[in-house]
Amino acid sequence: MASTQLCFENSGIHRHWLQTQSKLPHGFRVGTIGFDFVPVEVPKPARMRLTLIALDKPTRDFAAVFTRNAFPGAPVIIGRERLKEPSLGAILVNNKISNVCAPGGVSASSRLCREVSRLLQIEETAVLPSSTGVIGWQLPVEAMVQALPRVVESLSSHSILPAAEGIVTTDLYPKIRRADLPAGSIVGIAKGAGMIEPNLATMLVYLLTDIAVPRGRLREMLSRAVESSFNRMSIDSDTSTSDTVVLASSGSVPCEDEARFEVALARVCADLAEDVVRNGEGVRHVIRVTVKGAPSEALARAIGKTVVNAPLFKCAVAGNDPNVGRLVQAVGKFVGAHCPSLPLNQTEMRLGGIQIVENGEFLLDPSKEQDLVEHLRSAELYPSAPPRNGVFSPTIDYPPHERSVEIEIDLRQGIESCTVLGADLTHEYVSENADYRS
Amino acid sequence: MASTQLCFENSGIHRHWLQTQSKLPHGFRVGTIGFDFVPVEVPKPARMRLTLIALDKPTRDFAAVFTRNAFPGAPVIIGRERLKEPSLGAILVNNKISNVCAPGGVSASSRLCREVSRLLQIEETAVLPSSTGVIGWQLPVEAMVQALPRVVESLSSHSILPAAEGIVTTDLYPKIRRADLPAGSIVGIAKGAGMIEPNLATMLVYLLTDIAVPRGRLREMLSRAVESSFNRMSIDSDTSTSDTVVLASSGSVPCEDEARFEVALARVCADLAEDVVRNGEGVRHVIRVTVKGAPSEALARAIGKTVVNAPLFKCAVAGNDPNVGRLVQAVGKFVGAHCPSLPLNQTEMRLGGIQIVENGEFLLDPSKEQDLVEHLRSAELYPSAPPRNGVFSPTIDYPPHERSVEIEIDLRQGIESCTVLGADLTHEYVSENADYRS
Repeated sequence: MASTQLCFENSGIHRHWLQTQSKLPHGFRVGTIGFDFVPVEVPKPARMRLTLIALDKPTRDFAAVFTRNAFPGAPVIIGRERLKEPSLGAILVNNKISNVCAPGGVSASSRLCREVSRLLQIEETAVLPSSTGVIGWQLPVEAMVQALPRVVESLSSHSILPAAEGIVTTDLYPKIRRADLPAGSIVGIAKGAGMIEPNLATMLVYLLTDIAVPRGRLREMLSRAVESSFNRMSIDSDTSTSDTVVLASSGSVPCEDEARFEVALARVCADLAEDVVRNGEGVRHVIRVTVKGAPSEALARAIGKTVVNAPLFKCAVAGNDPNVGRLVQAVGKFVGAHCPSLPLNQTEMRLGGIQIVENGEFLLDPSKEQDLVEHLRSAELYPSAPPRNGVFSPTIDYPPHERSVEIEIDLRQGIESCTVLGADLTHEYVSENADYRS
Repeated sequence: MASTQLCFENSGIHRHWLQTQSKLPHGFRVGTIGFDFVPVEVPKPARMRLTLIALDKPTRDFAAVFTRNAFPGAPVIIGRERLKEPSLGAILVNNKISNVCAPGGVSASSRLCREVSRLLQIEETAVLPSSTGVIGWQLPVEAMVQALPRVVESLSSHSILPAAEGIVTTDLYPKIRRADLPAGSIVGIAKGAGMIEPNLATMLVYLLTDIAVPRGRLREMLSRAVESSFNRMSIDSDTSTSDTVVLASSGSVPCEDEARFEVALARVCADLAEDVVRNGEGVRHVIRVTVKGAPSEALARAIGKTVVNAPLFKCAVAGNDPNVGRLVQAVGKFVGAHCPSLPLNQTEMRLGGIQIVENGEFLLDPSKEQDLVEHLRSAELYPSAPPRNGVFSPTIDYPPHERSVEIEIDLRQGIESCTVLGADLTHEYVSENADYRS
């Protein structure tokens, strides 16, 4: 999916590459600062980053898509309302606490918007809040309000990198993707490392462009781009309460070709989606499943999602174990539960290009087994390391390559297809999520 | 759910208790033997156990329920046909290879049935095959045929324990539950430790009774008992290709009270279901979720299943971390995706009896946090141990207690309810499933 080949040999090169990606489009400034505080619920010292994305001038042309989780965060509740407002002037993002189902959550976020509006001298309703982190805790509103003037002071029109670094939680590295058009550019940043089954993605994504596209068209294009990128991936099947994708245009550059703009937008979204999966919590293998020969795209996608969410298969991939029986199990689980009349006796499956199933039966032998192991090994991002003091922590800051475990499932029952991205299930994932908060 | 309190202090006591449970009903014999072989697909030495359950006289009164996975194993394909046959005389079970989607799978299982029928001098169609283990490999039919006479020689009417021990794969201990009625008894054994989201359960269960209940009534009762036990649990959301529950009556004892028989059958199934979860792969906490105040039982069950299948919440439980935000996330994920119009603003939630959510908002404070941690700790089956040589292996043979993490979700939107059993997601699960086969 990623059309921009990274292929980093070491983090120095990645860092350099990130800088080449990070130039802000005209009309935007970003800033970020960190500060310490003590949560009310678990009184241990914690650190929060506040990140501000500001338009030089509020814009009418913005779009946003939010989580479908029925317990949305307060910023999502407010964000949905903002879509009706005439303009967007700034986005305030905090990490560490997601402000979901917390008492007084909406008024806390509103208070922060009000402070930003005062400092930037824009309307309160032109400020979009975003929060990510622990669910259930209350925002340290007073500490945040006190920190806001420093965030405003830090605003700079040079690079989006400080914002990409500011919004992360358990991410191992910042994620930036860009598209440069003949006139103007699109730059996107993403945060998201766990609770990722987009519906849409469990993550925060901000896409900035200086290319003038009117609000209605922007919203249609964002919706389609999200559908074909963030909604086709899953790290752990969980759907965050805070998922947010925002696209804002400063309108500084006339749009010469809307179709080309949309292609570029879709590519930036697809690349960021792959970045998010590749940096998923504890991910050691990215898994790319293409389901084809399906009677519908929806069915192809659902089968692909079932495969990348099947814990036993994910564990096998983590161990470089081509236990392809678990792959078949996952497909059969979905079809048996949801469309039992679909015949599977013509199904073909390939792993790493090697055919493993023909007409619904396995084609396995010892030499093929060895080739399958080799494919899994070649897609490994980090070798598994025994935990130090019970905590797994990969020491590599950037992905060493962009290879994936490649799975193709051909149902031979139609012409529709869909490609879904997912990840393995590793000790690192368990460590990170059994110990993340406490 | 388990009405028979175990509360073992050590494995000696459990072993003694198992023996008290293991007396076979009249009219049955069981036997088991092990032998070594080399799989075709991965030529490394392996060991298989063959277990035979034989009726002294074939019975018309038997029932069976099978997996809904759309890639069923060959034994399941044959087993479904057996339901139409006039009688059942024997059940042959092997572990290590599940005979799913393997070339020639159905004829391999048929060949084994034919050999058993010859040795026991019953009809081939009166033999039900069952296989569990690796998916995709072929059964070592010749080695199995050669071993069969020894299995027949090992048949004994004394105890079901050899069969309970013979059918296991990664199970840590055999599972037997019984109900003694004024006249006659029901004894059940179960195998199942992974790939467990029953639909029905990923497991093999054999229920034997000497109480005479006619075929039609037996089948109705088994269907209801499975629905309220094995179909309300999930270890890892995966649905095996081999799930099988068989109930056979030797008819030796007249049935005095069918209603009482059904209650006893349901209890044996519920107890076995809890045994299966408590012995799930890598399980360190059993999680019991009761969803009440729901508009329908189906919705209550689906929300309960979503909670026990939510990886992030399962990891938090594994770490004794009351990250209740992830619990709310799971409920919101299901409702947002499947019934977004259901109001959640009256929802109450309790963990370990402690109220954590009221009217859809959190009620958290530091002292409550400590109580929640204590509840999680008290439900822990085994303390987490660092891996030796990268492999986690609990050294305890039997569960030390029957406590669970107790969750109550009251939607306050109706009068229906459902209780679902599940488990945490641990390093032990990942180890077992990344390394299980190779």
